[in-house]
Amino acid sequence: MELKQIYTPIQKDLDKVKDTIKSISLIDYKWLSEQLSYIVSETGKGIRPALTLISGKLFHYDLNYLMPMAVSVELMHTATLVHDDAIDKALTRRGQETINSRWGDEIAILMGDFLFAKAGEFVADTQTPRVIKLFSQTLGIISSGEIGQFRGAYNINQDRESYFQRIYRKTGSLFSLSTQSGAILGKAPEAAVTIMREYADNLGIAFQIVDDILDFTSTEEALGKPVGSDLRQGTLTLPAIFIIERNPRDNPVKRFFASRDKRDAEEAIDTVRNSGVIKECYKIAGEYCEKACRNLKVLPQNDSRQALYDLAKFVISQGK
Amino acid sequence: MELKQIYTPIQKDLDKVKDTIKSISLIDYKWLSEQLSYIVSETGKGIRPALTLISGKLFHYDLNYLMPMAVSVELMHTATLVHDDAIDKALTRRGQETINSRWGDEIAILMGDFLFAKAGEFVADTQTPRVIKLFSQTLGIISSGEIGQFRGAYNINQDRESYFQRIYRKTGSLFSLSTQSGAILGKAPEAAVTIMREYADNLGIAFQIVDDILDFTSTEEALGKPVGSDLRQGTLTLPAIFIIERNPRDNPVKRFFASRDKRDAEEAIDTVRNSGVIKECYKIAGEYCEKACRNLKVLPQNDSRQALYDLAKFVISQGK
Repeated sequence: MELKQIYTPIQKDLDKVKDTIKSISLIDYKWLSEQLSYIVSETGKGIRPALTLISGKLFHYDLNYLMPMAVSVELMHTATLVHDDAIDKALTRRGQETINSRWGDEIAILMGDFLFAKAGEFVADTQTPRVIKLFSQTLGIISSGEIGQFRGAYNINQDRESYFQRIYRKTGSLFSLSTQSGAILGKAPEAAVTIMREYADNLGIAFQIVDDILDFTSTEEALGKPVGSDLRQGTLTLPAIFIIERNPRDNPVKRFFASRDKRDAEEAIDTVRNSGVIKECYKIAGEYCEKACRNLKVLPQNDSRQALYDLAKFVISQGK
Repeated sequence: MELKQIYTPIQKDLDKVKDTIKSISLIDYKWLSEQLSYIVSETGKGIRPALTLISGKLFHYDLNYLMPMAVSVELMHTATLVHDDAIDKALTRRGQETINSRWGDEIAILMGDFLFAKAGEFVADTQTPRVIKLFSQTLGIISSGEIGQFRGAYNINQDRESYFQRIYRKTGSLFSLSTQSGAILGKAPEAAVTIMREYADNLGIAFQIVDDILDFTSTEEALGKPVGSDLRQGTLTLPAIFIIERNPRDNPVKRFFASRDKRDAEEAIDTVRNSGVIKECYKIAGEYCEKACRNLKVLPQNDSRQALYDLAKFVISQGK
């Protein structure tokens, strides 16, 4: 099933989220306005704002609060990408030049800050201190997680557990903010807020595992950046961890981390692509998706609940 | 009059603000905890949180709301300094190594983001959407202002007006958040909130003019960074603009911006220091302070109001 189909219950409102995000470029400062247009022109899949809208629609669908929240989670995501690209010295993102590559790290830092500020303005419009606090806590989790990832670069001694913790911080936490805020703003009962949190924690981890798989198995064209970027930057993801687990003493990942030689990187990437680890990784992602959906059945039965099931299926179908 | 004396009505609570800020380093992640301790160990003058507390005390002094707000403005200030230092490639700040110099730009970006997140958590604790929105708007003003400053580096064609606008964004806006939020959380009448905003807008501009003067006239020891750093980085401040105004066709600032030669920088800095422009700059800072205080007399007459007058006097007495 395509995302477009899954989004049916909220597609109209998701389009409004995207229009609102585009409108943040309408400011007096011409140069900045043009750069903001550039940043928001290539939007991603919109999974985070979709999660907020769907989570709200499961309960009480009040767009006065859900709309700014959905805009806010997507802007926070965009801001973190701008900073991440500067940190990773990434040249392209979604097929276009990154801000750091186009204007330098200095502008990328400030542009990310500006986007955080805009995200903060929208979350303030929810008028709901609980979700505003969650929003800030999430940014804290994401940035401390990124600090851990950066500090752990080229460190071969990272196991599955540390990987799962890391991708929860990196991706699960923002998925979790997206659904929890939707449920809270939708006046869901507390038990349902918890179910939505558990759904998103696990869906986010599954999503990131698949993203990390695709970084190896996809094409540069589809990724919008070079294949194997994570490994090349010294970031260990699940497929590489599996290669290390199979032969801890000597393996191409270990050799590349030791030499940091380009040819060793190619060999490590080839090994990951041509071994059975990819299948194992999909299996684990699938388990997280099942865990995500485990408690959904106690929620009200409607189109939105079905969309959550379908989204979980979509996540693990990518690249298969 | 010393700051310590001016702060008398709120000193005890300002100490609590500092203790609370120090407590953000109490987290599980040991490495990050140590770095946070390092960042918050050298606190500045605390003018921003003091403004919040004093502004609240003028009206209804409820520390349940004023305390997190005061913590929040100081953390936002700290976060912006961490990012600014990375952008300026500054080596020292308040006499100690900057984060970017110690750990690299990547960590400085993420540490700044983490501090923004913490600031956001505290502002959420005010439970007051209006000040939360102001907080985010202020971050937007500061970061877009910094973008303008960075893009304007080494541009000789900047007049006084563009300078005043720039320093309002850079400094006035956060002073303004500090007093406005204090007044709002202190349940001040709307007219008083406006007076507090006008006070801070103007005080902030005066404060930044004096800061820009001190960058030329002070010592490396007192500044905690090299004398003339602004000019060396291509940032035009009021004293340099006055030098340009005196002889627009040929002057040492213009020559330095053209050559970017270290010796030309020294000459330009010497010219600023030994000319009458410093006195003129103090005069203008004094006018902004007068403007700041103009409407204070309609506020309730108490120790806090007196502190606002004294603070304005203190600002223009620095370095004299």
